[in-house]
Amino acid sequence: MTMEKSFNVAVVGATGAVGQQILKVLEDRNFPVRQLKPLASARSAGKTVQFQGKKYVVEEATPDAFKGVDIALFSAGGSVSKKLVPEAVKRGAVCVDNTNAFRMEPDVPLVVPEVNADKIFEHEGLIANPNCSTIQMVAALKPIKDRYGINRIIVSTYQAVSGAGYEAMEECLRQTRAVLDNEPVNPDILPVGSLPRKHQIAFNAVPQIDVFEENDFTREEMKMVNETKKIFDDQNIKVSATCVRLPVITGHSEAVYVETDEDFDVNDVRNLLREAPGIVVQDNPAEQEYPLATDAAGKLDVFVGRIRRDVENPRGLHLWVVSDNLLKGAAWNTVQIAEHLITKM
Amino acid sequence: MTMEKSFNVAVVGATGAVGQQILKVLEDRNFPVRQLKPLASARSAGKTVQFQGKKYVVEEATPDAFKGVDIALFSAGGSVSKKLVPEAVKRGAVCVDNTNAFRMEPDVPLVVPEVNADKIFEHEGLIANPNCSTIQMVAALKPIKDRYGINRIIVSTYQAVSGAGYEAMEECLRQTRAVLDNEPVNPDILPVGSLPRKHQIAFNAVPQIDVFEENDFTREEMKMVNETKKIFDDQNIKVSATCVRLPVITGHSEAVYVETDEDFDVNDVRNLLREAPGIVVQDNPAEQEYPLATDAAGKLDVFVGRIRRDVENPRGLHLWVVSDNLLKGAAWNTVQIAEHLITKM
Repeated sequence: MTMEKSFNVAVVGATGAVGQQILKVLEDRNFPVRQLKPLASARSAGKTVQFQGKKYVVEEATPDAFKGVDIALFSAGGSVSKKLVPEAVKRGAVCVDNTNAFRMEPDVPLVVPEVNADKIFEHEGLIANPNCSTIQMVAALKPIKDRYGINRIIVSTYQAVSGAGYEAMEECLRQTRAVLDNEPVNPDILPVGSLPRKHQIAFNAVPQIDVFEENDFTREEMKMVNETKKIFDDQNIKVSATCVRLPVITGHSEAVYVETDEDFDVNDVRNLLREAPGIVVQDNPAEQEYPLATDAAGKLDVFVGRIRRDVENPRGLHLWVVSDNLLKGAAWNTVQIAEHLITKM
Repeated sequence: MTMEKSFNVAVVGATGAVGQQILKVLEDRNFPVRQLKPLASARSAGKTVQFQGKKYVVEEATPDAFKGVDIALFSAGGSVSKKLVPEAVKRGAVCVDNTNAFRMEPDVPLVVPEVNADKIFEHEGLIANPNCSTIQMVAALKPIKDRYGINRIIVSTYQAVSGAGYEAMEECLRQTRAVLDNEPVNPDILPVGSLPRKHQIAFNAVPQIDVFEENDFTREEMKMVNETKKIFDDQNIKVSATCVRLPVITGHSEAVYVETDEDFDVNDVRNLLREAPGIVVQDNPAEQEYPLATDAAGKLDVFVGRIRRDVENPRGLHLWVVSDNLLKGAAWNTVQIAEHLITKM
C-alpha cells in the first residue's frame, strides 16, 4: 500500500481556453488532486466543468476562495492575477501564474522546466509561466545554447488564434465561413480585444499581437525579448521578434534564426535536439518531413525541423519550431511546474 | 490626331492564375495591344478568355504560334518557357518570362523596374521576371540600400496559395470548408504538386515552397537569395530566407530584417519609402495601421509598415512588406517591363 500525498488545487479561469486545457492535463497526468476548485470571474461562476468524469460547479474567484488551497494555477488574465495572486499567497497557496502580471518581477521565477527547473524552488509563493511564443523557442534553443553558446536570436512567429482565447477562435471560424459564403466578415475581436480597431483574420496574416510599445514593437514581441533573457539568465543575448497572428486554430510556429559562439555541425545539432527532454525532431527534407501546427496540436512536445546552416554565416542556424500554444505554451508548462513543486511539498 | 504605336502581344499560359491577371493588367493599363494572342497548353487550347470586352479562343502554344508576335509574356511553367522562349525569340518576339527557367542565366536581365529598369534594354530577346517573393522585397529595400547600404537580409515569408496556381487556391478553399464541416481534408496538391507527400494547408503554416535543395533550403528560399544578389547586382549582400505557405488566398507578406552599412533615422526611412516609386507606406502603430494581405490583394503597389529599429542592433531595421503576389509579384511586374520595352520599340 502506498500513501501518496495529494493536494487541493485551484484553477483560476477554469472555463477559458487555457483553463480547460489545465483541467485536461491534470487529468491526463494523474496529478494528485485531493480537491479541485475551479474558479472564474463572477460572470462565469455557476457554470460547470468536467474533471475525472465528475461535474464541478465553478465558484467566483474571491480572496477567500483560496482558503485551504495548496496550489493555485492562474490563467484568467493579468488584472485577475494582479488582484488575486497576492491574496492566494497570503492564504498559503503556491501560485503558478500564466499571465504577464508578474513575469518580469525580479523575485518571481520565470520557468520553463527544460531550461531552468532549478529556479522553481526559489519561489516566494509565486512562479510565473512565460508567454507561449517564448516557451517553445527557449525549450528548443536550450541544448544549443548549452553546447555552442547563442549570442543572438531573430524570430518571426506564425501564431494561432487560440492564443487570444475562445472568442478569437470562434471569430476566426465565423469569419472563415463568411468568406467562403461570400458574406461580410465584420471583425470584432482580433487583433486585440481591448483596442478599437479590428482586422480580418480569416485568410490573412496580421502583424500585431497585443498592444504596441513605445519602440514600435508589440508587447508580444517584447515579451519574447525580455522573457528569453530572464529565462536564460543572460542579459547579453540579443533577441528581436516579429509576431504575427494567423488563421490557424491551435499550434504556434516559429522561424528562428540564431548565431552561435562556437562552430557547430548540423547533424550534431539534430542529435543534440533528439536527446533533449520535451523536444521531438521532425526533420527530413527528402521525405518532406517538418513540424506542422496541425500535427503538433494536442501534443505536449516542442517539435523542431528545417534545421539548417545559414547560407552566408557559418555560425548562423535556422530552425522551424512548432508547439501547441495551449499545452506546452500554457497549460502543460504550468502543470509541469506544479509537478516539480509537489516533489518538495 | 495621334498615331500611337501598337503591338501584337502573346500571353502564354493565358488561362492560368497569372495569365488571367496579365490580361487584366494589360486592359487596365491600356497597353497598346494591336492583336492579342492568348496561348496555352494543348489541354487548355480551345478555351476562351475575355479581353477588352471581347472573347478570344486560346490557341495551343507551338513554335509557329509566335510568328508576327512583337511581345510574348510567358507564365505557363518552367518547362514550357525552356522549350518555347527560344522559338519565340527566333521568330522576332521579345519575351518576358515569369518562370524560373532563365532567371539566373548571366546574359538574361532579371528585372524589377523600380530597382534595375536600366537592365531591360540589355536584353537579347528575353527579360526574366523574378520570383514573386523576391520582387516585393527588393522593391521595398531598394531606396534603403541606395541611401544607407545593406549588407545583410534575413526574411521570413507568409505566402499565399495563389502563388501555386488555381488548383492550389481551390484546394485551400475546399480543405477549409472540409475542416469547418468536420469532414476529411484529403490534401492532394500542396505543398508541391510534383512531389509525393501532401500536407494540409487549411488552418496551417507549411514551411515548404518548391523542392528542397542540397543545402536543405527550399528552391523558393534560394530564389530569394540568388535573385536578390542578381537584381541588386551585389554578390556581397548576405541573404537568408525561410519561406512558408499559409492559408491566405492572395497577398504575400514578409518579415524582413536588414542590417545597414550607415546609421539611419527611422523617420527618414519612412519618408524615403513614402517618396519611392511603387511603394505605399502604411505604418501607424497608434492607429493599428500596417499592411495586410487582404488589403493589398488587387492593388499594384508594394505596401510597407512595422518599420522599426532592431531592439539590439542600431543598424538593424525591421519591415513588414506586403504585396499582391499575382500583380506586383507576377503580372504587373511583367507588364511594367513590357511598358518600358515599348518605349524603344
